[in-house]
Amino acid sequence: MPRYALKVEYHGAPFAGWQRQADQPSVQGAIEAALARLEPREHTIAAAGRTDAGVHALGQVAQCDMAKDWDPFRLSEALNHHLKPDPVAIVACARMEDDWHARFSAEERQYLFRLLMRRAPATHDKGLVWQVQHALDVDAMRAGAAYLIGNHDFTTFRSSICQAASPVKTLDALEIARIEGRSGPEVQFRVRARSFLHNQVRSFVGTLERVGAGAWAPEDVKHALEARDRAACGPVCPPQGLYLEAVRYPVDPFGQGSVSD
Amino acid sequence: MPRYALKVEYHGAPFAGWQRQADQPSVQGAIEAALARLEPREHTIAAAGRTDAGVHALGQVAQCDMAKDWDPFRLSEALNHHLKPDPVAIVACARMEDDWHARFSAEERQYLFRLLMRRAPATHDKGLVWQVQHALDVDAMRAGAAYLIGNHDFTTFRSSICQAASPVKTLDALEIARIEGRSGPEVQFRVRARSFLHNQVRSFVGTLERVGAGAWAPEDVKHALEARDRAACGPVCPPQGLYLEAVRYPVDPFGQGSVSD
Repeated sequence: MPRYALKVEYHGAPFAGWQRQADQPSVQGAIEAALARLEPREHTIAAAGRTDAGVHALGQVAQCDMAKDWDPFRLSEALNHHLKPDPVAIVACARMEDDWHARFSAEERQYLFRLLMRRAPATHDKGLVWQVQHALDVDAMRAGAAYLIGNHDFTTFRSSICQAASPVKTLDALEIARIEGRSGPEVQFRVRARSFLHNQVRSFVGTLERVGAGAWAPEDVKHALEARDRAACGPVCPPQGLYLEAVRYPVDPFGQGSVSD
Repeated sequence: MPRYALKVEYHGAPFAGWQRQADQPSVQGAIEAALARLEPREHTIAAAGRTDAGVHALGQVAQCDMAKDWDPFRLSEALNHHLKPDPVAIVACARMEDDWHARFSAEERQYLFRLLMRRAPATHDKGLVWQVQHALDVDAMRAGAAYLIGNHDFTTFRSSICQAASPVKTLDALEIARIEGRSGPEVQFRVRARSFLHNQVRSFVGTLERVGAGAWAPEDVKHALEARDRAACGPVCPPQGLYLEAVRYPVDPFGQGSVSD
């Protein structure tokens, strides 16, 4: 069966997360239902990142196996047709080798977190940012973030229901930028690693927000990390500012010869 | 009664437009209801632009007269509290002289129109852009737009229900930029004039889209303008890409001494 890579964009609000669930809407379930409209049977797809309820994607990558030899452009068009009106879009599609796997072939995941700083409630960006009503010290946040880079036991920054075999992970990057967004000043976090623990990015951002607000010193992040204790973590921030932005593979599936908008 | 200028941001989707209506939600109605929570009585506010159903604002300007001498910051905070959960936010507030008027003192209105070019349906920007599935020739659109700048009889680009006394207006600017948006390539139009006819911006954008798509030559815009005939207009584009972005006054109400996020 020909295998396809799908680059998927979605708005997380209406979904209980990526993963298919019996009684709640999921992104996986929405795409599998669209696939069943094209080839009527049970479909089971896999993805690089199993995002939580309310988390968005700009560049989630999933795979599907089809019976028919679909032209990638026609496959993406047909899926988008059947995905409506759900806020899920196939923004690129490529035919892959049989041994390529959306999850296991991935070398790095990149998340974006958008934090809006302003007093008036967000209107156009409602549900697309985490909003705080105070200013944040970006330099202090960067100083705190520096302690997290590299190979560490991230038990402090891991949800109690995390199923990963080990709390030891390597954080490749945690970059913090201040930008002027459409709705006001934003702090944008870009976080990269081969893989993440459950709630790791939201635990980082919630903790670093405390540093930016002056409630924590940057060195308190170091102490929290070294404690290897979930209770040492700052508050876990809400999901609506989080985006799975990109997934990296040894060869970009959506490079030359793929279909991309 | 102390007069206040309010800078208002809103998402147009849930509203039948700016103007208060007996049986449908409106932005004016939402703000007047919030004012009535602060000072219980009938409130009637005025605004620089009476936006249509589905049209957004980033910088609408309205005025209100209060019985009490409110601190502008407290007034904006109290209004935002009572406006929830409507997607309407007071992003700045200033105390004004009694002879200042949000509508009649305005010297120029600036609209932004966002046109997204991609095949896959928009997810995060759904309802915030007009989406077309084909590429557009921005240079051709600019050439067409050039015929519209200046003082003209804009009968062609005016809705049949327009109530303006005269179809003659002066268009100060119609700038077209191609940008890389979060959801893909966008054409952004910025249009400035002292005042506009009903549906004028959407008539411009709908017509110029035809030029960008190659269905019209740039000179066809000139012929359409000179026809002074509504039937010569291109298709009027949908409202969801349109934003009232800014209103200019002889002195910026939200400059020094005002409250702004």
